[in-house]
Formats: sequence, structure tokens, C-alpha cells
Amino acid sequence: MRIAIASDHAATDMKSALITWLRDNGHDVLDLGPQGSESVDYPDYGYKLADAIASGKAGRGIALCGSGIGISIAVNRNPACRCALVSDSLSARLCREHNDANAIAMGARLIGIETAKDCINQFLNTEFAGDRHQRRVDKLSNPA
Amino acid sequence: MRIAIASDHAATDMKSALITWLRDNGHDVLDLGPQGSESVDYPDYGYKLADAIASGKAGRGIALCGSGIGISIAVNRNPACRCALVSDSLSARLCREHNDANAIAMGARLIGIETAKDCINQFLNTEFAGDRHQRRVDKLSNPA
Repeated sequence: MRIAIASDHAATDMKSALITWLRDNGHDVLDLGPQGSESVDYPDYGYKLADAIASGKAGRGIALCGSGIGISIAVNRNPACRCALVSDSLSARLCREHNDANAIAMGARLIGIETAKDCINQFLNTEFAGDRHQRRVDKLSNPA
Repeated sequence: MRIAIASDHAATDMKSALITWLRDNGHDVLDLGPQGSESVDYPDYGYKLADAIASGKAGRGIALCGSGIGISIAVNRNPACRCALVSDSLSARLCREHNDANAIAMGARLIGIETAKDCINQFLNTEFAGDRHQRRVDKLSNPA
């Protein structure tokens, strides 16, 4: 399963560190940028990540910006995406169990690299619980 | 400015406590339910909150569920809404300063009532910083 990752300028250092760590752990990572440190707009990169998930180019996504807030909103504009803004591993587990999240957003200026890795471990290794949660997830795919 | 509030069954106690507190502090609160403790689907209530904001019935929204994750995704399906999932007052401040958030989501099973009030105080009393942030917020209103 390919993991797409995108950020804004506030989170390129965290993005680079996570890409190295994910690849060292055998994951197929699609780096959607940005590559430099020039100022960019987080919605542009959130939409790139959402497109990668919606098109099937990636099965999971990781979205990073300063607080994680802006890019999480952008990713969730796409009904194919269920993006959880997380800063702890419990939330990263629950977003998989209850919401079948296919993306997580994190704030590079709010949490450290080891907390981010801890969240990603839960995000990648927790199964969706299905059952009553499936009906709710289906409703997220079909906004009223 | 009217504040709309909606939840799922996991957060009705927090919703009731917050409504009392907000009204005691002079706010005009629109309670979008649910009223009882029967099991409901968070997307239904997230969409109600988004509709209230998009239609102008409310200027701000508060969305609650067990983790805050599911209902935050639902609210953000509507391009008129910028909903930040928060569990600390720093994030609640930043979502206003940088993202002009008009809604916050919180997890009633993850944070306590005083933390929720602290987040709401920041959410209601922090101004949007504008400037370069305006261009990014505009992009959230027009998903690619």
C-alpha cells in the first residue's frame, strides 16, 4: 500500500524525516511536495494529497502543516478522504477503528517527530472495526 | 453572533453543559441536537451544523462526538465551513488566527469540560490575522 505525504513550508523538515523513516521501514512513499522551503499555500498540497487518495494512487495519506489544521480541512473537502487531525496515538488508533480514516494530519510546530511516528504507527497498523461504524463512514462519502 | 452546537450520543452531556455555560455567559446558542441518549450517526449532526453555518443561521459552530474526529470530517465536507479539531487552547487560538475557523470540533471522551471551555474561549475571542492567511482561506472555499 502506497503512502502519500504532503505538507506546507512549515513542515518540510518533518516531512523529510518521516519519508526517510517510512522508507527505512519498507514502505512505498509518494512525496507530493513541496521540495524547497519557499512559502506555499497548504490548500494546494492538501488537495494534491486528496487527489492521490481519490484516484487510488495512494491508499493512505499523511498531511502536515504548522498546526495540521489548515491542511486537514483541505483534505476533507474531498468526499473520498477521511482525514483525522491527530496529536496523540490514541486519536490515531480511534480514527482507524471508528472512522476508517485514510489520512492523518499533524502539526509540525505542535508535536515532535517521535510523537508523529507514534501516531503513524497506530494509523498504519490499526484495523477498521466495521459494524455500526460502517454506516457512519458511508455517510461521510455522501455528504447531504 | 449565534453559536450553533451539535453532537452525537457520546457527547450529549458535554453539549448540555456547554450550552448552559454559554447561555450563562450571554451567548445566543442554537442547539441542533440530539436531545436524547439514543444512538445517532455523527455525520447527520455534522451536516446539520454545516448547514446552519452555510445558511447564516449561525456565525460559529461547535461540533462534538466521542473523539471529535468523525464530526470534524463531516462539517468540513461543506466548503463554507472551516472546522478545526482541537483539544488544547493553543490550537483553538491558531485555528482562528491562521484559518479563520468558523467551527471547532472536540472529543467528549478525550478531553474534559474545563479544557473544552478553554478551547471555546480562545475560539470565540481570537481574531483572524488576515494578510497571507486570507489567500489560503479563500482556497479552502474553492476546492480544486
